[in-house]
Amino acid sequence: MDIAQESLAQHALWQGKIECTPKMDLKTRHDLAVAYTPGVAEPCKAIAADSACVYDYTIKRNTVAVVTDGSAVLGLGNIGPAAAMPVMEGKAVLFKEFGGVDSFPICRGTQDTEEIIKSVCAIAPTFGGINLEDISAPRCFEIEERLNDLLDIPVFHDDQHGTAIVVLSGLINALALVGKRAEDVRVVINGAGSAGIAIAKLMLAYGFKNIILANSQGLVSSANTRNQAQADMLAVTNLDNMVGTLADGLRGADVVIGVSAPGVISQEMVASMASDPIVFALANPVPEIYPDEAKAAGARVVATGRSDFPNQVNNVVAFPGIFKGALEARAERITLEMKLAAAQALAQLVGEDELSEEFIMPDPFDARVAEAVSAAVRSCAAGSASA
Amino acid sequence: MDIAQESLAQHALWQGKIECTPKMDLKTRHDLAVAYTPGVAEPCKAIAADSACVYDYTIKRNTVAVVTDGSAVLGLGNIGPAAAMPVMEGKAVLFKEFGGVDSFPICRGTQDTEEIIKSVCAIAPTFGGINLEDISAPRCFEIEERLNDLLDIPVFHDDQHGTAIVVLSGLINALALVGKRAEDVRVVINGAGSAGIAIAKLMLAYGFKNIILANSQGLVSSANTRNQAQADMLAVTNLDNMVGTLADGLRGADVVIGVSAPGVISQEMVASMASDPIVFALANPVPEIYPDEAKAAGARVVATGRSDFPNQVNNVVAFPGIFKGALEARAERITLEMKLAAAQALAQLVGEDELSEEFIMPDPFDARVAEAVSAAVRSCAAGSASA
Repeated sequence: MDIAQESLAQHALWQGKIECTPKMDLKTRHDLAVAYTPGVAEPCKAIAADSACVYDYTIKRNTVAVVTDGSAVLGLGNIGPAAAMPVMEGKAVLFKEFGGVDSFPICRGTQDTEEIIKSVCAIAPTFGGINLEDISAPRCFEIEERLNDLLDIPVFHDDQHGTAIVVLSGLINALALVGKRAEDVRVVINGAGSAGIAIAKLMLAYGFKNIILANSQGLVSSANTRNQAQADMLAVTNLDNMVGTLADGLRGADVVIGVSAPGVISQEMVASMASDPIVFALANPVPEIYPDEAKAAGARVVATGRSDFPNQVNNVVAFPGIFKGALEARAERITLEMKLAAAQALAQLVGEDELSEEFIMPDPFDARVAEAVSAAVRSCAAGSASA
Repeated sequence: MDIAQESLAQHALWQGKIECTPKMDLKTRHDLAVAYTPGVAEPCKAIAADSACVYDYTIKRNTVAVVTDGSAVLGLGNIGPAAAMPVMEGKAVLFKEFGGVDSFPICRGTQDTEEIIKSVCAIAPTFGGINLEDISAPRCFEIEERLNDLLDIPVFHDDQHGTAIVVLSGLINALALVGKRAEDVRVVINGAGSAGIAIAKLMLAYGFKNIILANSQGLVSSANTRNQAQADMLAVTNLDNMVGTLADGLRGADVVIGVSAPGVISQEMVASMASDPIVFALANPVPEIYPDEAKAAGARVVATGRSDFPNQVNNVVAFPGIFKGALEARAERITLEMKLAAAQALAQLVGEDELSEEFIMPDPFDARVAEAVSAAVRSCAAGSASA
């Protein structure tokens, strides 16, 4: 049985991947009186008197909503909220398993930007954070930004920032391996949607200077932008305004990051890059170029989104720890500094003696991961609170 | 330590009363591939192809939202959504413990009727049912009715219908004890808010003929209505249009049901009732009249909302089984027939040999309760489906 068949069969057995489990026994009338009426009136009154107490007495302290409208699911596209449920439940499972964070999927029956913003605000009192998931660009930018302005809990679009954090952590280690510096290398990011733009922004904040985005029409330049978000990126990327194809952009480049489509990077393109090419081919499940092909064409370090090759770029090393740290710090936002600190903490989990072409990223099952990421986030929160 | 202090201390320890627990182990990359990517794409595709499959593969099958705006919490009033959280989490605990139904609290940051309706529609794809809780009258009527029209999952305001079901079940047995028939007795319901009106409607549907509602100004009559909902009830209650005080209404009445305020029923009022008075004094935690006082004044059967007296009218015997049955049947609504069947099933759980003045209602910890109620609901759903 292949993974697809096995997964379908398991989902039919699970009938939903998470359950809402009481933390206490309810075996006697006394138990009921303490957990429910009349005793429950006490924490209610405490919260009514001081709203900050909601973090002391309720699930808000440790619970994140996984919110989607199903408009941009994995490789499946706009399949709508009901069909997106298995992914969101899976995310909730990962939050709990890897970060100890409770989370609950909220799939929204609307894809209207204003309605989504209003309805997320409407449910916010229950939650300590909002993880936006699989919402299509450019709507996802506005939804995240406006919700962060409206709410006093962190709102984080994982497809953008989680991906960017993990990519940056892998790049930090890949550059160390090949002995190049962030500020010296030329990077092409193929894919100028939400993930590609977020990766570029985080890399620029880290210290990369020379990044060119590419969309399906070629390099993003003044002659080729497909929306306002891409146009805005021209202020900080492709500063020479290079015009051309992906192949043109890759000639002499040090790094290529694909968040685009299967098979679009050829061996010829890899062979045309600078010495020791770094290739992150993250299209899933079929990458822009397979690792063996990229290696044969001269790539020094290859990463993909798949678990069956080395160097899997997998958001699960980031988002559980990010929210764990943000919740513990009661941060109102997940800041740029927190994202950078998280990427550096992830990179540092790979020891100097372990670092190799086949091992630039910590294993998701490494128990230190969530703690290291959450500690990085917490220390940023503490720093900004005292600043 | 009294219950209030114990409850507050426990809530501080629990830090939220429910957690979102994965149903599977996630220890290997293979586990991840089955529960999450890439395997999860299969159930997503199955649901995208046939939306009914969402019940086969996701938590929608067995999960209810507990929705409030915090506008009418217990005896606490309009304390808002955050302060209502402990109650809603408690409800979620009871759903799971007593009915095996997963549920998640959604406390809404708006008390605007239109916004609540829109935002509940927005989250509905995740859930198999909506339990409305502690929303003030008359908004709760419109919210429930319109949501039931808009959604294809059942929407049930427990403060109305759960209470009505349990009250009716107790009355059925109380009348059997005193040898009176529903169609013959005169009933006064003190409290003409959402609970009082729902109780009256369900009793009328069961076969009661002579019901008078009372509000804080006295008997609800053409001379005394406080809103449209009370005015509408005049078509089916107080058919003689009796005008007067609660005391006037109780003179010669067979049954009084208080869903009102502490201490408003006096011993004199009870003494003025017909033979074998039935007194349901459900204000919580301080009833309209204490059982010992009512008994001393001649009451034959007394019920309260408290667990420390006999005959507790406690919704927990109803709502877990109601939703369990509705979810199992995939009912789109919880119909009047289902509510009547649930009340009768509850009444029948008290055997003839057990029935006494002190035991008219099954114990919440009686393991048969949720099964009996859910079976009654399922059989109605099956009947209406085949009709």
